Amino acid sequence: MELYFTEQQTDNQRLSVRVTKTLHHEQTQFQELTIVETPQWGKLLALDGFLQTNDVDEWVYHEMGAHVPLFTHPNPKRVLVIGGGDGGMVREVAKHPGVEHIDLVEIDGRVIETCKQYFPQISVALTGNPKVHVHVEDGIKWVMDREAEYDVIIIDSSEPVGPGEGLFTAEFYANVYKCLTGDGVMVAQTESPWTNAHVIKRAFGGISKSFPITRLYTCAVPTYPTGLWSFTLGSKVHDPVDADVHARFGDLPTKYYTPNLHLAAFQLPRFVQQITEEAAK
Amino acid sequence: MELYFTEQQTDNQRLSVRVTKTLHHEQTQFQELTIVETPQWGKLLALDGFLQTNDVDEWVYHEMGAHVPLFTHPNPKRVLVIGGGDGGMVREVAKHPGVEHIDLVEIDGRVIETCKQYFPQISVALTGNPKVHVHVEDGIKWVMDREAEYDVIIIDSSEPVGPGEGLFTAEFYANVYKCLTGDGVMVAQTESPWTNAHVIKRAFGGISKSFPITRLYTCAVPTYPTGLWSFTLGSKVHDPVDADVHARFGDLPTKYYTPNLHLAAFQLPRFVQQITEEAAK
Repeated sequence: MELYFTEQQTDNQRLSVRVTKTLHHEQTQFQELTIVETPQWGKLLALDGFLQTNDVDEWVYHEMGAHVPLFTHPNPKRVLVIGGGDGGMVREVAKHPGVEHIDLVEIDGRVIETCKQYFPQISVALTGNPKVHVHVEDGIKWVMDREAEYDVIIIDSSEPVGPGEGLFTAEFYANVYKCLTGDGVMVAQTESPWTNAHVIKRAFGGISKSFPITRLYTCAVPTYPTGLWSFTLGSKVHDPVDADVHARFGDLPTKYYTPNLHLAAFQLPRFVQQITEEAAK
Repeated sequence: MELYFTEQQTDNQRLSVRVTKTLHHEQTQFQELTIVETPQWGKLLALDGFLQTNDVDEWVYHEMGAHVPLFTHPNPKRVLVIGGGDGGMVREVAKHPGVEHIDLVEIDGRVIETCKQYFPQISVALTGNPKVHVHVEDGIKWVMDREAEYDVIIIDSSEPVGPGEGLFTAEFYANVYKCLTGDGVMVAQTESPWTNAHVIKRAFGGISKSFPITRLYTCAVPTYPTGLWSFTLGSKVHDPVDADVHARFGDLPTKYYTPNLHLAAFQLPRFVQQITEEAAK
């Protein structure tokens, strides 16, 4: 018998990954949660049928989501991660010795608990790290209720449908702005330029309404549709392409991020550059 | 009825693209040639079951394969393209006004003829362009028989199995070196760092045996396995990262390549950098 996990990446394209074992399957309060064992990507987490993370390539997304904003801010001490219940983003943030306090705000506690069980190397920082504070709460409300608390905010959302939808609005980004300190930096995952240009336009446009510096950067995630993935960074003061990343990098252990790649990631393919130009209009 | 073209990308992963019509299918002297119409990628060419090119994303691969070596060499006049029977690489080379002579050497004449029929916008430069000379011959023999004839050689091969296999050997690269002028530049497509690190090591190691400057760069091709694709560039004199690309770019029309992206493409993810370091040992 051959088993495949198949993601309907678009209406007209499917990615199928061979499965050796289904480890976990449940309908949580918010979404369908599936964990399977695969020869290609190790253990793999899907939410509502979309691949979220896996043992083999998870560090691409997590390193690029965390280190770019954390090396853009000159001295980040307090960091908020919204979403990201697998803990991978928090693990990367916790590698920065200057960071003193990390809040993880994830709406679905079942994601946190199952990832602790099945992805110990991704969720490692969620357990026994005194700097890390885990809150099972709605990130949209969290940023409504706070002000000037964080140096960096990372929005590690799922797709802009279902529980992730409210994390792509201009109102939400305005509240993120309010929660940041005077020279704070935010970053949000903003999908693929090939299949979700409208998501990038909406996010980039929304972020640039609040933040004077708004920049898109990309990384290459093999398990995400089209393989080309975008983050949009909003900053009050510090420009990510002028950041002193080489001096600050030190010997931080990475598999994807490097200081040179930090700067290179903002050099966009022309068609992606055009998406941001249309969004900024 | 739902029809899908399915590529077995690895032993454990498949990409399936919805098909509205099968336009052409034949077994040539060298390989199985399939052309289908798809809603996602327009018309799509597969050889031996592997996606080669399509209407929607073809310019990523062709622009990055052609413009990086052509802007690395300060004044390319004579260019050889090996493989690339679809004509996309030749089309991009022909955009450079200083280029006077382009030889395309493709072993399978059926690829050329069917692409002229079904991909007119990719194969456009193969017809009626006095600078372009099409030869249905074996590229391996072509470079054996010539010396110091080309400023730039582009190896646009299929996978290193079947007819493409001999285009990944150190002996072949040594003959490419011999066919280049004194400051010549070559580039070869060298597959995905995720699934074909051994191909990169073999090509990078082979090229660096002949060429004093050997550098890997990447681009993001959605229809190729993992989406992250590599080229390996060998150069006798000119370093691609020191090239005066901004001054020379002019108003050359592109959708992916930009002078900034040319330089950024050589800034590798750390795990890819490590593959090249192991290859250079």
